[in-house]
Formats: sequence, structure tokens, C-alpha cells
Amino acid sequence: MPRTQLNLVGFLSGSAVNGDSWRHPDSDIDADLDFGRYKAYAQALERGKFDALFFYDNVLGVADPAWLTANPGVPRWEPLTLLAALAVVTERIGLIGTASTTFNEPYNLARRLASLDHLSGGRAGWNVVTATGGAENFNLDTHIDHAERYQRAHEFYDVVTGLWDSYADGAFVKDRASGRWTDPAKVHVLNHKGRFYQVQGPLNTPRPVQGHPVIAQAGASDDGRELAGRVGEVLYTAEHDIALARAFHADVKERAVRHGRHPDHVRILPGVSPFVGRTLGEAEDKYEDLLRHRDAATTLRGLSTYASLGVDLSTLPFEEPIRLPDEIAETNSHKSRQRLMVDWIRQDRPTVRQLYRKFTAGGHRVLVGTPRSIADDFEEWFTTGAADGFTIMFSSAPAGIEDFVDLVVPELQRRGLFRQDYPGRTLRDTLGLPVPRNRFFA
Amino acid sequence: MPRTQLNLVGFLSGSAVNGDSWRHPDSDIDADLDFGRYKAYAQALERGKFDALFFYDNVLGVADPAWLTANPGVPRWEPLTLLAALAVVTERIGLIGTASTTFNEPYNLARRLASLDHLSGGRAGWNVVTATGGAENFNLDTHIDHAERYQRAHEFYDVVTGLWDSYADGAFVKDRASGRWTDPAKVHVLNHKGRFYQVQGPLNTPRPVQGHPVIAQAGASDDGRELAGRVGEVLYTAEHDIALARAFHADVKERAVRHGRHPDHVRILPGVSPFVGRTLGEAEDKYEDLLRHRDAATTLRGLSTYASLGVDLSTLPFEEPIRLPDEIAETNSHKSRQRLMVDWIRQDRPTVRQLYRKFTAGGHRVLVGTPRSIADDFEEWFTTGAADGFTIMFSSAPAGIEDFVDLVVPELQRRGLFRQDYPGRTLRDTLGLPVPRNRFFA
Repeated sequence: MPRTQLNLVGFLSGSAVNGDSWRHPDSDIDADLDFGRYKAYAQALERGKFDALFFYDNVLGVADPAWLTANPGVPRWEPLTLLAALAVVTERIGLIGTASTTFNEPYNLARRLASLDHLSGGRAGWNVVTATGGAENFNLDTHIDHAERYQRAHEFYDVVTGLWDSYADGAFVKDRASGRWTDPAKVHVLNHKGRFYQVQGPLNTPRPVQGHPVIAQAGASDDGRELAGRVGEVLYTAEHDIALARAFHADVKERAVRHGRHPDHVRILPGVSPFVGRTLGEAEDKYEDLLRHRDAATTLRGLSTYASLGVDLSTLPFEEPIRLPDEIAETNSHKSRQRLMVDWIRQDRPTVRQLYRKFTAGGHRVLVGTPRSIADDFEEWFTTGAADGFTIMFSSAPAGIEDFVDLVVPELQRRGLFRQDYPGRTLRDTLGLPVPRNRFFA
Repeated sequence: MPRTQLNLVGFLSGSAVNGDSWRHPDSDIDADLDFGRYKAYAQALERGKFDALFFYDNVLGVADPAWLTANPGVPRWEPLTLLAALAVVTERIGLIGTASTTFNEPYNLARRLASLDHLSGGRAGWNVVTATGGAENFNLDTHIDHAERYQRAHEFYDVVTGLWDSYADGAFVKDRASGRWTDPAKVHVLNHKGRFYQVQGPLNTPRPVQGHPVIAQAGASDDGRELAGRVGEVLYTAEHDIALARAFHADVKERAVRHGRHPDHVRILPGVSPFVGRTLGEAEDKYEDLLRHRDAATTLRGLSTYASLGVDLSTLPFEEPIRLPDEIAETNSHKSRQRLMVDWIRQDRPTVRQLYRKFTAGGHRVLVGTPRSIADDFEEWFTTGAADGFTIMFSSAPAGIEDFVDLVVPELQRRGLFRQDYPGRTLRDTLGLPVPRNRFFA
């Protein structure tokens, strides 16, 4: 039976909105440090029956403080610390936190995610990233090479999931009369010795409520897709073109099948930044109003760095077609984003203005419309195999979150495309994903 | 003006009580995974105006699952995850979590502690440990040597506090009109390059509410005392003898002064496990009742390993004076505890029974008495320079916590030895400790 309902994940971090959208007077500017703000966002998303809240992260060093002048991504909460606090003030929404396989130890991260899963009654998710930078904060002179980062990621994942499987159900008998706290027959000592990691185990935490917290992933390079096909369950992507999105969707599902998985167990959720109005005019006004408060140069500089275009777009004439250098050095960080933007610029020859409007939302698709037109768009992507749902990137907070929850979600529900309520207690229940079997115990 | 009030810290971890005290029917046995239990403990301690809750940890691997059979220390929460959740359900009590300088990255830990400090409104504390074991879970064949662990700890502390000082107050201007989010003149790039760590910074979190979270420490070896004298603010120790405690107290305060610190800014809080009754008989009955439910052999085996005595005490005749081997190999983990126990056994020649009763509480002092006799004891230790307060290790939970809060705390308050209410909002306010000045900004 084909799946009939799509998944929705709310993307948040730092100031809670994309780029310099914080300059619009409707957006909070203290979410980076005011827990009350994030509590309100999480509770609003839960009212909208969102599958999960997704908290982005990076650990970049900064050589020149000037780089921070217009960067609202700093400060921000350490993801799993924030999510532990949010677990206490929410009841059903999933809590997906970003943590890299490059700058953590698998034993530490396995514990933290397992604790979050227990704390939240089975609502934890881990966004596995290899990190696009940050080596300078972790005793390294240069960043680890892209290919090696992914090799590490696979082994890291094996260790973490192996540690999560340290105990069979019922291992902790806690029998007062005999003094037996643990049944040693239900303990597995991992004794992992691999290329990058050596970890004895067992973890000092029982198996997570969900077996394993849900695995999210975002890399779209070939290595990234391969990791996604093998272990990813919720994929955050950045597709603009429905035909390309279908091709990506098919490719990743095929990889999953090749790894012996059911294709429905990988949910591909492209990022979308919606501007919602009761009429199209109202939506367009909101969008234009935001653009008036934003600064094109800041966004363009950010995009130029993000996609390693080899040129600073903010220095080019705004109304002329973009000319890229003939040779662009391949990046070691956002490989797939670089390729996507370079290909589009070379094929479509957009002006800087056209590019700016298309990529206002940090490289993600901007959708300006009514609840009905946005639902139409979602329905087309969902029913034609371009997406299993969407990662919603809000253009303002709290207003943008409330617009989506109060206007778009009811329209999706009316069409039967989205749940009326949470079906169970855990994030796996919500997503309809199976509980992984314990590798060491039947 | 000499300080007139003592400090109280509540020690918790895993099953929340010491050793196999969980076997007593009055103790919860699900605190290891039921957040509601820890929430109740934290709120009870806050009702008792405790300075802080102190969450112990270790990251040991386990070669033989049999070791876990009678070990209620596993499972347990990952400390900072639990404390983030407790921050939301408490308002004034300090939240001190253990994290090692041996198996963490300073950048990651600095962020997590800073986030906890922001989340809790300035109530975070970090129990700095070098870890007595765990190398087997962190890519190492053998544990790092004691001396090198302490060298690392000093540098780790320098990096973490340097990262906490990354921003001057007011660095994040968030000016919508100009688009200036950060004032780069108020950002310090650490660029640390030391023997063990290379960390660029700045941290992606503003300076913690308390400047630096409060630094707790527990090592009592010579290296441990030196770290304590240099950076420790709250010390958890295990003194049994009031004369030895005074000597330890004087030694550490002297080291603090040598490091240019005020001696009052190091608070020495020996561990005590109280059994409280309205009459002495009632207290003794509680103690005997607990002993009846405990298993001496389990405790003795644990102590033998803990203090590396070179002999398993549980195999020796219970009523005969203990004979230790002539040569005992010096341990690489609990150095000071080994020396303390070996010296005491050699001098006092206790029987196994005597040792067992003295060390029921994981090596800490057991105090069986009425609110008045316990307050007398605390007053003597406090007023004669043996302690600045106490770390309370509960023999049952929740009953043992409530006994102490409802019976002993009011007696200490009546004598003026303990606060009637919290004086401010942060843990530094509560302890009366200064906010450290920013190393890089006036």
C-alpha cells in the first residue's frame, strides 16, 4: 500500500530564521539565547502535528571576527542540550539534533542520543553530518578530506548503533532479593576495532526506547547519497527542480533497496521556505516586505562562500547575467550544492537579481502562495515521486511558524495528505518507521 | 568577615543511592531511566535550599559482563543531558555535571556547559575529572598516565575558559537597521596552540551567564590538589578523620593562595552519608535496617577494586583484622583513596566488619544520628576548619533526601549555619563566588 501522507519537519537554528531575515521587525531576535522562544516554536510545531523539529549545527572556527558582523548563525544553542530541555516541554514532536561524526567520539555521542531518547520517551533523532568545516577547533591544521570523512562516518555509525544494541530487553532485572541488578547474559561487549575507532563498550545506558534514534542525513554528494541509502531515514535535501528531485528521489531509494532496505524507510524531505497569505497578493506582499528588510549583498556573499562559486556575487552587476570563472576549484565541503548552483548558472544564465530571489532561503526553494497553492505544490511533489514530505524553513518566527501551522497544515489535513493527530508516542511511530532489531540479540 | 554559613551539595547518579542500597524497599529502583524521579529529587533538594545537585559519572568499558551483575551504577543518564532537562523544572538549585578532560574535546564541552548555563539562567557547574578509566572506549589500549592526565586537564581548562571568554559583553548588537548582528571588536579569536590542544575559536555561544560555570573538582592526589588549588571552586572530598580533614583543608587553601586566589573561593565539601532519625534509636534502626538489605560481599568487592588494595576483602574472615599484602602496586586511578585506606588499615588494624561499617557509603563518612547530633557534627567540622560544607550522599531516595531536607536542614537554619533562602539567581550568587573577569576584555 503506497503511503498517502507526507512528513513535515521544522528546520530551526540560531536566530531561528534564514540569513538576515532577522532584520524584519516581525522576527524574534533573541531565540539564540531565550529558551522561552524555542519552547514556543516547538509547541507551535507540535500543535501543527509536525513529525519533528530539526536543529542544524556547525562548529566552524572564525579566523577574522569581521565574518561574524552580519552572521546571525552565531550564537546558537548546542543542539542536544537544547533538545533535552525541549523534551520536557513537549510530548509528541520528534527532536532531531545535528552532531558530526568527524569531531565527536562515538561512545560519548551514543550516550547523549540514548539519554535524549529515554528522556523524551522515544522522540530523538540524530542528523549525521561529516561537517563541512571546523577542523581548526579540533587540533587539526586542515579539514579531513571529504572521502575519508564519509569512511569515518560509516564506521562511526556502526560503533554508535552497536553500542545502542549493548543490552537485550530486560537486561536490567533489578531483583532486590537476590541483589542481581543486571543479567550478564543479556549484555553484549562490542569490542570494536576498526580503521578509525576502537571501542570496547558496552554503553552505560540501556537500549534506546526506539531501538535506535531516527537517523537523519543531508549530504547529497555521491558519498552522501551512499550513506543515505545505507543508513538515512529522514533526508534533508535542497531540490529546486521537480524533475531533478524525482531523479534524486529515485536514485536514493534505489541505493536503499540495494542495501536491503524498504524504499519507504527513507523519507526524502526537500527544504522549502513558504510565504503564506490568505490571498496570493498577501503572500507576495509578505515576501516583498521581507526582501525590503533584507540585504541582498549579505545573502549573495553568503551564497558565494557556501557554494564555493569562485566569485563574490555581491560584487557583480545586479541586473546582468552572471558570468562564472571558467575553472572553479572543487570544494571539500558542500560538494552537491556547488554542482547544483554552478550547473544552473551555466545553463540558465540568470541575472544576479534572479539568482537572489531564487535563493533567498539559504539555497532552498521559496514558495510564495496561499494555503491552497502551497498544498497543490506539495501534493504534486509528493504524488509524483519528487518528495516524501518537506523540511520547512521559516522566513520569520514566530509569525512564519504560526502561518504555516494555522493555514497550510489544515489544508493538507483536509486533503488527507497530512495526519490529524500523532498515531503513537515515539518519532518512529509518527514516521511509521520500524524499530531496528538488536544486532546481537534476537 | 569569616563565612558563617556552610554549603550543601546533593550527590546523585545512576540508581541515586550508594552501592547496593537500592536493595532496601524504600529506595526507588527506576531513577536510572525515569526522569520523573530525578525531577522529584532535584525539586526536594531545591526545597531544602541546597547549593547544587552534583551528578557523578564515569565512562568505563566492561570486559566481562559479570562485573555488571550487582552494579547499579549502570545504567545512568548522560550527566549534561539530564541536567539540561532538570534546568527546566527547577529555578534556583545549581546543576553540577561531571565531564572528563581526557575523553572530551574542549570546544564541544565548552559549548555544552555554556548552553547549560544559559538555559538554567546561570546555574551550571562542571565537575572537572581526568577519569580513572575508560580509555578502552576511546581508541586507546591503555589508560593515559596519571601525571599526563593532569597536564592535559590544566591545558583543557585553559582552552575551555578561554573559549568562554570569546566575547565581551554586548558583542551581539543585533541592530536591524544596519544589519550588524555582531560587533567584531568585541570578539576574541583564541588561536590556542598548546602541547595537547589546538583550538581556534571563538566559541559559537556568548559568554556564560556566570562568566564561567562553577568549577567543581574531586581529585585529592598531589596533582589533584594542585589542580584544585589553581581552578577548583567546589571540592568533593572523602575525609573521615577531622584532624586529617583540617590538614587537607589547610593544604588546599594554601595552594589556592599561592595561585593568587582568596581562600574562601575554594569550598571544601567532604562527602557524608547521613542516617537521620527523630531519636538516635530511630536513626540506628534505619542504618541497621539498610545493612540487613545490603550485601557486605558486594560492597567489599567494590571497595577492594576502587582502592586497588591488592586483595579482595570479601574473601577475608569477617571478624579478623585485615592483613594487606606487604607490597601494593600504586594505582593509576584513585591514588588518594588508595593511600587513605591502606594507611588506615595498616595503622588501626580494623576487622573486615569494622571496615565494612565505616565504608558503607562508597568510602565516605557515615553519620547516624538525630538532626541535632548531625548538626553538631557539621558545626564542629565547619567551625574548626575541617570543612566548608558537605556533599550529601543519600542512603535512600526519595526517603533519605526528604529526611535530610525536612529534619536536618531546619536545624542547620535554626543555628544560622545554613541559608533560609536563595540569595540570588545564579549558582555563583548562591555560593557567594565572584564572577571571573573576562581574560580578553576589561
